[in-house]
Amino acid sequence: MHFLTLDELTVEDIYKVLHQAETLQTHQPPPKPDLYAANLFFENSTRTKCSFEMAQRKLGMNVLSFDAGTASISKGESLYDTVKTLEAIGVDVVVIRHSEERYFDALKDKVSLSIINGGDGMGHHPSQCMLDLLTIYQEFGTFKGLTVTIAGDIRHSRVARSNTYALQRLGAEVNFSGPPAWRDPEMTDIPFVEMDQAVKESDVVMLLRVQHERHAFGENFTKQEYHQQFGLTVDRERKMKKNSIIMHPAPVNRGVEIADELVECERSRIFKQMKNGVVTRMAMLQYVQAKREETKHELIN
Amino acid sequence: MHFLTLDELTVEDIYKVLHQAETLQTHQPPPKPDLYAANLFFENSTRTKCSFEMAQRKLGMNVLSFDAGTASISKGESLYDTVKTLEAIGVDVVVIRHSEERYFDALKDKVSLSIINGGDGMGHHPSQCMLDLLTIYQEFGTFKGLTVTIAGDIRHSRVARSNTYALQRLGAEVNFSGPPAWRDPEMTDIPFVEMDQAVKESDVVMLLRVQHERHAFGENFTKQEYHQQFGLTVDRERKMKKNSIIMHPAPVNRGVEIADELVECERSRIFKQMKNGVVTRMAMLQYVQAKREETKHELIN
Amino acid sequence: MHFLTLDELTVEDIYKVLHQAETLQTHQPPPKPDLYAANLFFENSTRTKCSFEMAQRKLGMNVLSFDAGTASISKGESLYDTVKTLEAIGVDVVVIRHSEERYFDALKDKVSLSIINGGDGMGHHPSQCMLDLLTIYQEFGTFKGLTVTIAGDIRHSRVARSNTYALQRLGAEVNFSGPPAWRDPEMTDIPFVEMDQAVKESDVVMLLRVQHERHAFGENFTKQEYHQQFGLTVDRERKMKKNSIIMHPAPVNRGVEIADELVECERSRIFKQMKNGVVTRMAMLQYVQAKREETKHELIN
Repeated sequence: MHFLTLDELTVEDIYKVLHQAETLQTHQPPPKPDLYAANLFFENSTRTKCSFEMAQRKLGMNVLSFDAGTASISKGESLYDTVKTLEAIGVDVVVIRHSEERYFDALKDKVSLSIINGGDGMGHHPSQCMLDLLTIYQEFGTFKGLTVTIAGDIRHSRVARSNTYALQRLGAEVNFSGPPAWRDPEMTDIPFVEMDQAVKESDVVMLLRVQHERHAFGENFTKQEYHQQFGLTVDRERKMKKNSIIMHPAPVNRGVEIADELVECERSRIFKQMKNGVVTRMAMLQYVQAKREETKHELIN
Repeated sequence: MHFLTLDELTVEDIYKVLHQAETLQTHQPPPKPDLYAANLFFENSTRTKCSFEMAQRKLGMNVLSFDAGTASISKGESLYDTVKTLEAIGVDVVVIRHSEERYFDALKDKVSLSIINGGDGMGHHPSQCMLDLLTIYQEFGTFKGLTVTIAGDIRHSRVARSNTYALQRLGAEVNFSGPPAWRDPEMTDIPFVEMDQAVKESDVVMLLRVQHERHAFGENFTKQEYHQQFGLTVDRERKMKKNSIIMHPAPVNRGVEIADELVECERSRIFKQMKNGVVTRMAMLQYVQAKREETKHELIN
Repeated sequence: MHFLTLDELTVEDIYKVLHQAETLQTHQPPPKPDLYAANLFFENSTRTKCSFEMAQRKLGMNVLSFDAGTASISKGESLYDTVKTLEAIGVDVVVIRHSEERYFDALKDKVSLSIINGGDGMGHHPSQCMLDLLTIYQEFGTFKGLTVTIAGDIRHSRVARSNTYALQRLGAEVNFSGPPAWRDPEMTDIPFVEMDQAVKESDVVMLLRVQHERHAFGENFTKQEYHQQFGLTVDRERKMKKNSIIMHPAPVNRGVEIADELVECERSRIFKQMKNGVVTRMAMLQYVQAKREETKHELIN
């Protein structure tokens, strides 16, 4: 009924959502004007929020405007009371981004609307994960035997964590790369490789955004130094494996994680990922809605 | 043509809107895609704003986004000029919440669009009042002979004032309860009762939100002290009259006006009120629209 | 494919858009639910933003909410990357207001969606210009032989510049009026007239807003002094030419550029301009969409 992390989905469910997302690329589903969605982004993210809104609108849902900045939550109301209010008002599905890890644990068993996790602190970001999977799956037709290197600020990234576990479950091999200080002490079992080696061996080089908000450059290295040591430079791109691709969840720091001129190069799937985000989120919305209808049906019978 | 305070409505009109709201609970009206609404909330209120937007969308109206925080009004434009602009642009109905009491007096005779008052300073809050009336009416089938106690910050509450006059007109008896300092010097004719007595005698215990913005706790009492002296504690709830109900306009300060565990107890109609808010506002929107069409018709003939 | 400044349009194109705007006043076009618009206002402007949104909705387009205040651009993302993201997500047309003059030069050849310029720094404001032209054209049926005086802060006004060139191309004669310090050193060929003379000779007196943000009153004159020396006073209005009209892009500083009681006087077309803004923007949206479809068609053939 909810879509909170990929851990709850079976491998079969993951493929089901991926295939549905692919179908949606060419088939327009019938509009659902009786369904109401609200997007509660307590942390800013134009990209994810716009993408969810587009997905909702392409499904013909009604999207209620909700401004987290001026919401009652700033008067001290709990997230629970806010969500219960939207439920009472008639909202069917809420997408929530919140700085608190696993904020949804306090909600999931107490609400009858569906929650889709739009990102929880440094925890999960399942829609980003699903769209990344779709992009890889469309490229290679499989996950088995692929080598994926995730490079950058592993420690503070919800993308790194979600993607690593999901890719491993689907049969891919995951490596990490980037500054040693940014390794995740809880994921020491994942091999660490230098960027120079990573580009030669990986089918997918997945770069993470350096969070200026969290790390001040200048402490350990300048932007230029980061780029030279840990980033995807023009030189390194030339050494990439045949048919390998570049990914990045965006927004990109051009010239830091990746050379400016590579953002839209032939290997780059960065804008493809964004495009895939819409159909992926449509499939996720349909998935929770189908689960919700099943539950209702069970309650009736 | 407008819906500004309940004082303008006859008792017959009030019942008309209540009955229409009830009808809307089961009957979906035909969509009105040619009607345009805008919600001008110069004071924050997610709950009321979302509820009005939901009502407008359920009526199939177009809802124009309007961000009061960045509006021209912050460049010094008057409310009148802002509303006239929306009228010129083609907006049919505006819902306005504004900190100035009776802000609408400067507008109501000079505009051809409809204004619904979403709350004016410490003045009125007619949609809250109407949804409260609906909730009571659904419970008891009448207002005659009911005892309603409104408890808390009477002095600064637009809900207290609007509800008191409306309930009296409809035949209910109203009492106030709460800290003596928060009594309203203009409404000394309403009996004051202690909370311990109120729970035993009232059919409806209507709690008001303690406005942290306006009253700093700690001056006269702590949150805990307020709860014990003036709030609905678990103990007091046990002494409530048979079939009596608890109401609160929300957002609730859990553990202050009302014990945390009572918010969703059997007697509580708090989330029911929110649910009722949508159909009530739909009925109010239909009411002003019908009045507006009458006026147009009169102008033609 | 874009609508950036009026300079790109032939005189024939300008008339085409004006005539289409006139048609739209009485004819409702078929809805375009498959078209998606987003309004990126990095500078506040309720009026222009609401007007564009109304135009989009009246065309039956989908309008994606976009809050420039919380956008990724505040994380340092470039305007280019923001626009490319919206393109990837499936947006067909963006309206952009941005403080940087000619911000669109860095975008226009690199995107496949359509850009409508909603105002660029002190550069252009083509939708304001088009709606001004429509208002004049509706009044006089022609531009040839008309005398238009633009009065106020010429130097910092994108309206002054856009309108001057467009009006001249269409055959009107343009004069400037206002404080000498606010003359535009790049437009010294336009005659300067005192306000007392301007009202006697002009068919159109177009007042500009005094930008409090940019010019502190009190340096050279008070608000009252400005009004007396350079504004449209009640006295001056009485001396206006027969059948002449008053225009202002709004929001109006009542009692500064124009006497309070003249804002809605018989000669004033100020609210008419706002009304015209919606059909003008509808025609502009249709214009870029038609160009875009032509381009697609050419690419296929």
